[in-house]
Amino acid sequence: MNRSRREFLQKLTMSSMVLPIVSTYTPQWYGPLHTDVQGPVLRVALMGLGGYAQRVADAMKDCKRAKVTGLVSGTPAKLKEWGSKYNVPERNRYSYETFDDIKNNPDIDAVYVITPNALHHDNVIRAARAGKHVICEKPMAVSVQEGQEMVDACAAAGVQLLIGYRMRFEPNTLEIVNRRNAGEFGKINFFQGQCGFKIGDPNQWRLNKELAGGGALFDIGIYAINGTRYMVGEEPVWVTAQETKTDPTKFKEGVDETIQFQLGFASGAVASCLSTYNMNYLDRFYLNGDKGFAELWPSTGYGPIKGRTHQQPLNHPHIAHQTIQMDEMAAIILDGKKPVLPVDGTTGLQDLKIIEAIYRACATGARQELKLV
Amino acid sequence: MNRSRREFLQKLTMSSMVLPIVSTYTPQWYGPLHTDVQGPVLRVALMGLGGYAQRVADAMKDCKRAKVTGLVSGTPAKLKEWGSKYNVPERNRYSYETFDDIKNNPDIDAVYVITPNALHHDNVIRAARAGKHVICEKPMAVSVQEGQEMVDACAAAGVQLLIGYRMRFEPNTLEIVNRRNAGEFGKINFFQGQCGFKIGDPNQWRLNKELAGGGALFDIGIYAINGTRYMVGEEPVWVTAQETKTDPTKFKEGVDETIQFQLGFASGAVASCLSTYNMNYLDRFYLNGDKGFAELWPSTGYGPIKGRTHQQPLNHPHIAHQTIQMDEMAAIILDGKKPVLPVDGTTGLQDLKIIEAIYRACATGARQELKLV
Repeated sequence: MNRSRREFLQKLTMSSMVLPIVSTYTPQWYGPLHTDVQGPVLRVALMGLGGYAQRVADAMKDCKRAKVTGLVSGTPAKLKEWGSKYNVPERNRYSYETFDDIKNNPDIDAVYVITPNALHHDNVIRAARAGKHVICEKPMAVSVQEGQEMVDACAAAGVQLLIGYRMRFEPNTLEIVNRRNAGEFGKINFFQGQCGFKIGDPNQWRLNKELAGGGALFDIGIYAINGTRYMVGEEPVWVTAQETKTDPTKFKEGVDETIQFQLGFASGAVASCLSTYNMNYLDRFYLNGDKGFAELWPSTGYGPIKGRTHQQPLNHPHIAHQTIQMDEMAAIILDGKKPVLPVDGTTGLQDLKIIEAIYRACATGARQELKLV
Repeated sequence: MNRSRREFLQKLTMSSMVLPIVSTYTPQWYGPLHTDVQGPVLRVALMGLGGYAQRVADAMKDCKRAKVTGLVSGTPAKLKEWGSKYNVPERNRYSYETFDDIKNNPDIDAVYVITPNALHHDNVIRAARAGKHVICEKPMAVSVQEGQEMVDACAAAGVQLLIGYRMRFEPNTLEIVNRRNAGEFGKINFFQGQCGFKIGDPNQWRLNKELAGGGALFDIGIYAINGTRYMVGEEPVWVTAQETKTDPTKFKEGVDETIQFQLGFASGAVASCLSTYNMNYLDRFYLNGDKGFAELWPSTGYGPIKGRTHQQPLNHPHIAHQTIQMDEMAAIILDGKKPVLPVDGTTGLQDLKIIEAIYRACATGARQELKLV
């Protein structure tokens, strides 16, 4: 990118306006990030055609190495509408009844499972047994046991399992990770992750324990959990947690509204996190080290992400996170690329172990030791 | 203040440069704050001539209603040097041996106790028994029992006891409090207070439990405790806490290095705080409500304090906090003024109750219920 273009983009990023999607992105000082546009294309079937799948499908229009070639839905009208919109031929459209036939479809390399949380387990295992690589939206499952079964099933089938941790590919986030790895913040002392929003419609699946597995922690708090791990750069060894519920009608038994949790690390670093379905104006990450700090605010929304270190603002131009994620996942699956931050099933399983420990900590009031490594 | 002057000061405040001290301060929309310069002068003896007393003495040069008229020190050379520098005649200089004679000194209305924490109790009670009003630096004491004895002694002597909570007079802070009271942030959901610094000299009194009463929590964590109370506008009903020590040589038994603590409120609001002697780049307050938020960063340093709400930056010109504090305390003591945020002994005692509960929570791992109201 030439200087004047970079300056133009920096000015855009520093203003509060929404940025246009920029598809040509040049990696900066911290080394390769976004996949080289050269290489084979990952042909993906999207499963579960809800709001987030819509976002993924739209973002994938800008991908250089990933393409929607299949659709899976329980709603025939959606298959028709999406098939037409995304140019997916009828032979590549599946219901949940016909889905297993996908194993005979040479147009599809991978299935991206974007159904409600509680359905991930069965859907991922079905896709694996059909011989397709699987991308699964986070949280990968609603229990550690389920997650382990999914990891095992994909290994047994010889397919890859990746979790849709889009922030693990986000340029400002990765710049902080790379600066941390380069020692720019010194010894890491503290991380704070505040993730949440005020949830609307009380009848949505996210507030149904049977479908969601829990409440805010599974849906939005997981960003703080996952973020703690990649920002600190270490797996936690203990967790404490405190639950608060102000509206037991909206947030029923087993559906957490607000949980504060704290994590400790073998290095002595600590983290303080908030997960909530009852507050707006959050979404902030803060990393503290002996030599400096980094802040992302907003840190995990759909963007633009805004960040800074103790030295300078971070000004990566906004690209839809799902565009980068899918191009990178294509490189991981097809080229064997090792990403800066892993997104494999084991990485997803660690989050579930922490989530279960947080619920135990809330229920007992006692600190839970974690054995993640 | 006319418009161009206000704009000039706003520009200054928004830049990162250090602001000049501005002694003429005009209250803004949220009502009276800084004391009217008319009125009698509070004549103050400073006790304990260390670094913070120096800061107070210098700031008091700009006071309109408070004046240093006495000095108390165990070091004759300091009495001589300070007496000369601040124009305090020899008859108003005391050692700890001669201090009780202050009761016969008509030039002194109040004693400001700025000795190490563990000495506050005896010094405050001595000053009260000498019939002088007492201003005591925070923490007011090293235990609830001591604090209660101080409150009782001042009541029995018929003198006022105020605690040196300078942030309770800070204009940006008070603007947030007043905006919160006006409903601008809606129902308050969450507060975050991160207070700490990397402490230097391992031989200073702050790292000696006998003199300090504890560690970071008594010295800097108390800003988060006190800040939680005035920012949320409610007394907490429970607290949980987790202690981490990375350097047991520097931070000996009973001297806390890093404590995370969480507070809950009857309204359902929660708070998440950090107290540490092992990190820089902290000092941030964040208040979250249904309708918006407020941020102060830095929030409790000597200034300039920088803040903003979801709607606008807060741009009060910097005045030394101790200047405002002492002018306001003069009005409280001499005019019976009721400040926006109380700074009396009972307010200080609440912090000690929370501190003791935090230490109990760290020791037991169990949530501690608080009965502050």
